[in-house]
Amino acid sequence: MHFLILHGPNLNLLGTREPDVYGTLTLEEINNSISVLAAELGCTVSFFQSNTEGALIDAIQEAIAGCDGIVINPAAYTHTSVAIRDAIAAVGLPCIEVHLSNIHRREKFRHKSLVASVAVGQITGFGLDSYLLGLRALLNHTKNK
Amino acid sequence: MHFLILHGPNLNLLGTREPDVYGTLTLEEINNSISVLAAELGCTVSFFQSNTEGALIDAIQEAIAGCDGIVINPAAYTHTSVAIRDAIAAVGLPCIEVHLSNIHRREKFRHKSLVASVAVGQITGFGLDSYLLGLRALLNHTKNK
Amino acid sequence: MHFLILHGPNLNLLGTREPDVYGTLTLEEINNSISVLAAELGCTVSFFQSNTEGALIDAIQEAIAGCDGIVINPAAYTHTSVAIRDAIAAVGLPCIEVHLSNIHRREKFRHKSLVASVAVGQITGFGLDSYLLGLRALLNHTKNK
Amino acid sequence: MHFLILHGPNLNLLGTREPDVYGTLTLEEINNSISVLAAELGCTVSFFQSNTEGALIDAIQEAIAGCDGIVINPAAYTHTSVAIRDAIAAVGLPCIEVHLSNIHRREKFRHKSLVASVAVGQITGFGLDSYLLGLRALLNHTKNK
Amino acid sequence: MHFLILHGPNLNLLGTREPDVYGTLTLEEINNSISVLAAELGCTVSFFQSNTEGALIDAIQEAIAGCDGIVINPAAYTHTSVAIRDAIAAVGLPCIEVHLSNIHRREKFRHKSLVASVAVGQITGFGLDSYLLGLRALLNHTKNK
Amino acid sequence: MHFLILHGPNLNLLGTREPDVYGTLTLEEINNSISVLAAELGCTVSFFQSNTEGALIDAIQEAIAGCDGIVINPAAYTHTSVAIRDAIAAVGLPCIEVHLSNIHRREKFRHKSLVASVAVGQITGFGLDSYLLGLRALLNHTKNK
Amino acid sequence: MHFLILHGPNLNLLGTREPDVYGTLTLEEINNSISVLAAELGCTVSFFQSNTEGALIDAIQEAIAGCDGIVINPAAYTHTSVAIRDAIAAVGLPCIEVHLSNIHRREKFRHKSLVASVAVGQITGFGLDSYLLGLRALLNHTKNK
Amino acid sequence: MHFLILHGPNLNLLGTREPDVYGTLTLEEINNSISVLAAELGCTVSFFQSNTEGALIDAIQEAIAGCDGIVINPAAYTHTSVAIRDAIAAVGLPCIEVHLSNIHRREKFRHKSLVASVAVGQITGFGLDSYLLGLRALLNHTKNK
Amino acid sequence: MHFLILHGPNLNLLGTREPDVYGTLTLEEINNSISVLAAELGCTVSFFQSNTEGALIDAIQEAIAGCDGIVINPAAYTHTSVAIRDAIAAVGLPCIEVHLSNIHRREKFRHKSLVASVAVGQITGFGLDSYLLGLRALLNHTKNK
Amino acid sequence: MHFLILHGPNLNLLGTREPDVYGTLTLEEINNSISVLAAELGCTVSFFQSNTEGALIDAIQEAIAGCDGIVINPAAYTHTSVAIRDAIAAVGLPCIEVHLSNIHRREKFRHKSLVASVAVGQITGFGLDSYLLGLRALLNHTKNK
Amino acid sequence: MHFLILHGPNLNLLGTREPDVYGTLTLEEINNSISVLAAELGCTVSFFQSNTEGALIDAIQEAIAGCDGIVINPAAYTHTSVAIRDAIAAVGLPCIEVHLSNIHRREKFRHKSLVASVAVGQITGFGLDSYLLGLRALLNHTKNK
Amino acid sequence: MHFLILHGPNLNLLGTREPDVYGTLTLEEINNSISVLAAELGCTVSFFQSNTEGALIDAIQEAIAGCDGIVINPAAYTHTSVAIRDAIAAVGLPCIEVHLSNIHRREKFRHKSLVASVAVGQITGFGLDSYLLGLRALLNHTKNK
Repeated sequence: MHFLILHGPNLNLLGTREPDVYGTLTLEEINNSISVLAAELGCTVSFFQSNTEGALIDAIQEAIAGCDGIVINPAAYTHTSVAIRDAIAAVGLPCIEVHLSNIHRREKFRHKSLVASVAVGQITGFGLDSYLLGLRALLNHTKNK
Repeated sequence: MHFLILHGPNLNLLGTREPDVYGTLTLEEINNSISVLAAELGCTVSFFQSNTEGALIDAIQEAIAGCDGIVINPAAYTHTSVAIRDAIAAVGLPCIEVHLSNIHRREKFRHKSLVASVAVGQITGFGLDSYLLGLRALLNHTKNK
Repeated sequence: MHFLILHGPNLNLLGTREPDVYGTLTLEEINNSISVLAAELGCTVSFFQSNTEGALIDAIQEAIAGCDGIVINPAAYTHTSVAIRDAIAAVGLPCIEVHLSNIHRREKFRHKSLVASVAVGQITGFGLDSYLLGLRALLNHTKNK
Repeated sequence: MHFLILHGPNLNLLGTREPDVYGTLTLEEINNSISVLAAELGCTVSFFQSNTEGALIDAIQEAIAGCDGIVINPAAYTHTSVAIRDAIAAVGLPCIEVHLSNIHRREKFRHKSLVASVAVGQITGFGLDSYLLGLRALLNHTKNK
Repeated sequence: MHFLILHGPNLNLLGTREPDVYGTLTLEEINNSISVLAAELGCTVSFFQSNTEGALIDAIQEAIAGCDGIVINPAAYTHTSVAIRDAIAAVGLPCIEVHLSNIHRREKFRHKSLVASVAVGQITGFGLDSYLLGLRALLNHTKNK
Repeated sequence: MHFLILHGPNLNLLGTREPDVYGTLTLEEINNSISVLAAELGCTVSFFQSNTEGALIDAIQEAIAGCDGIVINPAAYTHTSVAIRDAIAAVGLPCIEVHLSNIHRREKFRHKSLVASVAVGQITGFGLDSYLLGLRALLNHTKNK
Repeated sequence: MHFLILHGPNLNLLGTREPDVYGTLTLEEINNSISVLAAELGCTVSFFQSNTEGALIDAIQEAIAGCDGIVINPAAYTHTSVAIRDAIAAVGLPCIEVHLSNIHRREKFRHKSLVASVAVGQITGFGLDSYLLGLRALLNHTKNK
Repeated sequence: MHFLILHGPNLNLLGTREPDVYGTLTLEEINNSISVLAAELGCTVSFFQSNTEGALIDAIQEAIAGCDGIVINPAAYTHTSVAIRDAIAAVGLPCIEVHLSNIHRREKFRHKSLVASVAVGQITGFGLDSYLLGLRALLNHTKNK
Repeated sequence: MHFLILHGPNLNLLGTREPDVYGTLTLEEINNSISVLAAELGCTVSFFQSNTEGALIDAIQEAIAGCDGIVINPAAYTHTSVAIRDAIAAVGLPCIEVHLSNIHRREKFRHKSLVASVAVGQITGFGLDSYLLGLRALLNHTKNK
Repeated sequence: MHFLILHGPNLNLLGTREPDVYGTLTLEEINNSISVLAAELGCTVSFFQSNTEGALIDAIQEAIAGCDGIVINPAAYTHTSVAIRDAIAAVGLPCIEVHLSNIHRREKFRHKSLVASVAVGQITGFGLDSYLLGLRALLNHTKNK
Repeated sequence: MHFLILHGPNLNLLGTREPDVYGTLTLEEINNSISVLAAELGCTVSFFQSNTEGALIDAIQEAIAGCDGIVINPAAYTHTSVAIRDAIAAVGLPCIEVHLSNIHRREKFRHKSLVASVAVGQITGFGLDSYLLGLRALLNHTKNK
Repeated sequence: MHFLILHGPNLNLLGTREPDVYGTLTLEEINNSISVLAAELGCTVSFFQSNTEGALIDAIQEAIAGCDGIVINPAAYTHTSVAIRDAIAAVGLPCIEVHLSNIHRREKFRHKSLVASVAVGQITGFGLDSYLLGLRALLNHTKNK
């Protein structure tokens, strides 16, 4: 089993900016923690981050070859990108949507996800744990299919 | 560490009705799986289900004595109960909101949760796994406070 | 054939209060009229009224054992209860929604029924006759299934 | 007692098209069943169908002479015709609104009836039975006035 | 003159939780202050609190026998309960709606009261004083009828 | 100068129904009063009433030949007919919209006119006088062009 | 019979600014034309213009003494002033609302009048003629009361 | 293959009125061009225009006998007629919706088509070409079925 | 302690107009009753009424010198004046909003107060008592600060 | 070149109240800074502040004589005054709208300006600098016309 | 004549994914069909596909040099990209918007196109034929300019 | 002091297209004018333009190293990009939003800026001057921090 961990715009700044909203872990530290859990669970993961909507879509499309599923934190594109939604629907891979912060506690325009209805499920509000729980959920979902 | 697992209205029918929406596990089987995981993680859990909004509020209030947190599946009350939201805010215990099905794939009136913004976070769409991931999230959250 | 006649909140006051809106018959008189028609049509009926949403849900769930269908006047819960809607959908019994007054002539918030789309059909505006027509509709529907 | 049974646009196609939505009975068969019930109940009925809003209004106006009430299935005009609503209000005859299908299970624009608030009441979702129950309701209503 | 003082959901926690929103007085202390004022004004009061919507409706209905009016703080049910509204309208007793906090300073969904338009009037934002002013208002209103 | 006076649906019932809303004058009496004023002002008028939207559109189109302007009371079609609006815009004749009753005092759906923005102006609320003032306005407007 | 002609904000600039929207007549010329018609119809008129909402309200209140009715062009306050509406309702004098331009052809926020539902009727779109027709309407209305 | 070309209200005025919106071709010239293309493509066409919604519905219903599909320009009824929509859905013939002007460049109420979701597809903005492309689309669609 | 009692537009007409909405007391009688209560409670009051928004704002600003708080009935400006709201927020004096009638029983545009969220609290529906309770509330609030 | 600097309601309190929102400068200090810049730029300025909408309109109208443009901070009237908007449009002088605070960071009802679409442009969020930049913008705009 | 055929995000997956929504043709096969038609019609075409909004804008801008028009299927960006709309408006080339599927039959957020009002016209619902009809429309439009 | 001047999509076309909306200056000429003013004010500037949302986000992130603030004209992304908003919030540099045209005079979807509430302030409507005033505002803001 191999999974893609996809990080949306501005997540490359994690740990260096707005720690009260997103925590103090860097993206590298998050990726390391995910890798450790993946090893523990007996699967492998690769990572990709981009600030460009189209580059994230490219990555989702390329996941058809070699990936069994995707954990995606679409960040700001969660609320504006029909194109990422369509990419997920098109490739047909199981996709778990995760968010570091609880999007329902933030501005109203962050309450609505365009991605959620094409994802298997959504996990929001647990910081690094959102990713780790997402990986567990994805692995279980893939096994049970 | 002791946690309350709270099940909202109609969840007592789980496994016997609408398996295409909610799966084939009964509420008892779900509770058993949660107990197994709790033991594995070194914590204990108790369970409560009711179809009455007020009884669920009573249970949340009583959790002040002896519980370190709550995993709640408010079911239909997710979308209509300001009173459950207020109970959670009032007791101040960390609360994880979980849903068996992906509420964003269902009728529009299920997309909005009145509870989400007073919960630590929300997990939706993974069947039994929503509860199990919720317990893990709650335990981690409680440890890190 | 046995049917449950379910009365929502405040209907126990019928005939004693607001006769211009709800008529002068008491709930007991209404139930008696329903029983007479049931005997005439060759079926039996039982009755339940409660002011508590959860108690109405319990009654709907218990109808699985022994009832062939439900005539429900959800009264005020018509417009606010997703939980009653879910209970009706979950038990899978044919359900007829009735209202004494014409809800479309009243306040705007009474025009929308959360129950209607999971009911077989809706009858509104005929006073006692709403129940009697509802029983006829339910019996026919059950026979023709 | 004499009543007018009024059928709105496209109901002349009944039984020949979209049987999954509207059933397999033709309009003639429906009218026959209504006639049988009318005879049984000791009243008479006449029938009119048109695809033209204005022709339906003409028929409602002409009912002043000789009719004691109207059972109307306004079909598509239910949701768009203020003019039919005004005609019903103007003639002052008791009017029962009926629908074959449950309009609350269909597209959102069918949930709102412009006619309902000037009708005595509304019956929706019972196929042919909607008309038969409507005739019973109208007869009772007229007797009790 | 005898009045019912009705407290809605979560008000039993008053004084122990969220003092910045609701103040530091316990419900018992509030009730004591109301009793003192009642004695001073020459009337008597009884108290009831419940977290269950149906239990509050039962209490309103039972007030018909022996009460001359109601001071109600519907708390969270202010914004969601058509059934409590209907109960107040049905019993026909003068009813004063009170709130400890200024609901117009809180979340948007708390700005709208379903109860207000069937109450004599509404008092919001004065803590314990909301109840005391409500009792004065009710007594005057009842005397002047 | 010759003008068309156009009456929309249900106005043929004027004077016989709902006198509290529309007054006690019959359509014939209204037309007679308009003819008297026309003679006084030195112009001629012809009249047309229909309950059918399409017939009203036909009449508007035929007015191109021989009419210098139109006084129209679109009645219920005021609020629903884009087609009448388009007909008025297409023929390019000056058109005055009149209403017997004050549409802003009636149901909310009567507050919006689809016709008003293609008319020269609108006169609402003066009973017969709405037509008479409309004729004066039209004559003046036509003279001043 | 004596009537008040009330002009709202910016109407003092008439004839000097934006002639394409409001025409080339000055307010003085409009008032003169109204006086001429009043003399012809056998009544008298007085005039008042102000840019201040409160001054217009004062004028409406003072009209109680000596005026039989008001022709008002509330201009911009048409769309924003509940206070002018309340003044008209309070004094109880018949009031005709007039507008020089067709408000339904202008910006959307000008389509809604807060005054219209407390006026006898509304005349919009005829330039000076709106006032003259308004005076006729007011005189007739007052005579027929 | 035989197709019906259906023209909605006011299209009979084409070429004589509002050439800046609808072009200078008359309806007859448009029909001639369609006939020429039909001959070229090896199919036949018949034409119908009406200003009456019901007459258009009658025509759609009659197309069941002898037509293989419909090209319809519903004009103003595009935005208001549920009845035409229902007729198209009921007859089950492939239907192409066309518009001369680009409806998305016009008033907001023209942006929404009630017909589009029951049509095969929609072509808008190309003048006469909208019809010609519609005929091509219909012929291809019918061949490929 | 000295308080300003501020009356908004049209309240100078109290007791002379619309007694069914606002009661039969004149503004002078209301002021007298307030003075009596003030004396009884050991504080002093001054009064101001204006129909002009700006004059009310001036009065609020001038209250900084010498007043300990304000009881304001903004009347129609309740629903339209951001400027009065800003004045209250700017001066920082405790302010109690009162209404004679129950604004929640009146037109929808009266349900929303722009002032409420900058006031200490709101009292609505008790006639003269609204002012008297407001004075008590203000005095208590000021003492407890 | 001579310009009018117009200050809306409550701006006379600047520097004495709510310094966290509006800064610590008084209106006099702001005016002094503007005068200094005006002298530097070779133009002259006059100042006017009022809490009354009508007085601001009067000032705008009087600016026709002698002013080449206006810098206006409409404060609260930004969001409610159609009359100020109309005054600006009527006089035809170039007008720059300025705000001390960033209105888009404040309450939602402050996000919409009724004045902006008749102004040359809008400057918001820079404290005193909003005025100074506004003067520069106005001078440049006037020179380039 | 040379035209650009522009394909939006995820269209590179055509034919390989979701054939029930988008058909079984690959993007290459679609392009080949377009080339064949172009040759037949005597014009030439070039193709570009990208998942990145900015790359599509770049392509539109570059079309100024050498292209006489654009056929664009903006796919998901249809509903979210003001920037593509602005690019089309800026370059001023005639642009035809096409969609493979009927967007009015899909999710509600796909019903609104941000591009349509700057395009010459829109063709939706005909699969490959949408492109072919679009090319015909563009060629005709360009010739007739 | 060094500042980044950031230009959004389609601004590279400035001066060559749509001069009536955006003026006749090219982007190069605008940049030159900004450089001249920067030199005059004693600061330095660098420039970046892109049509790609992600490239603009990259530029904002890179500004952390070496820039003291940003003047951004987000163009079309103003209204659709949560990601650019998040980038500005994340980097924490002072940011001034500028627009060449007055966005409040254009289409409704351009009235709302997603960026404004994370910017220091907004300047709109002054052509090149919007940038120049923005640079002054930014320099002052940075000095005063």
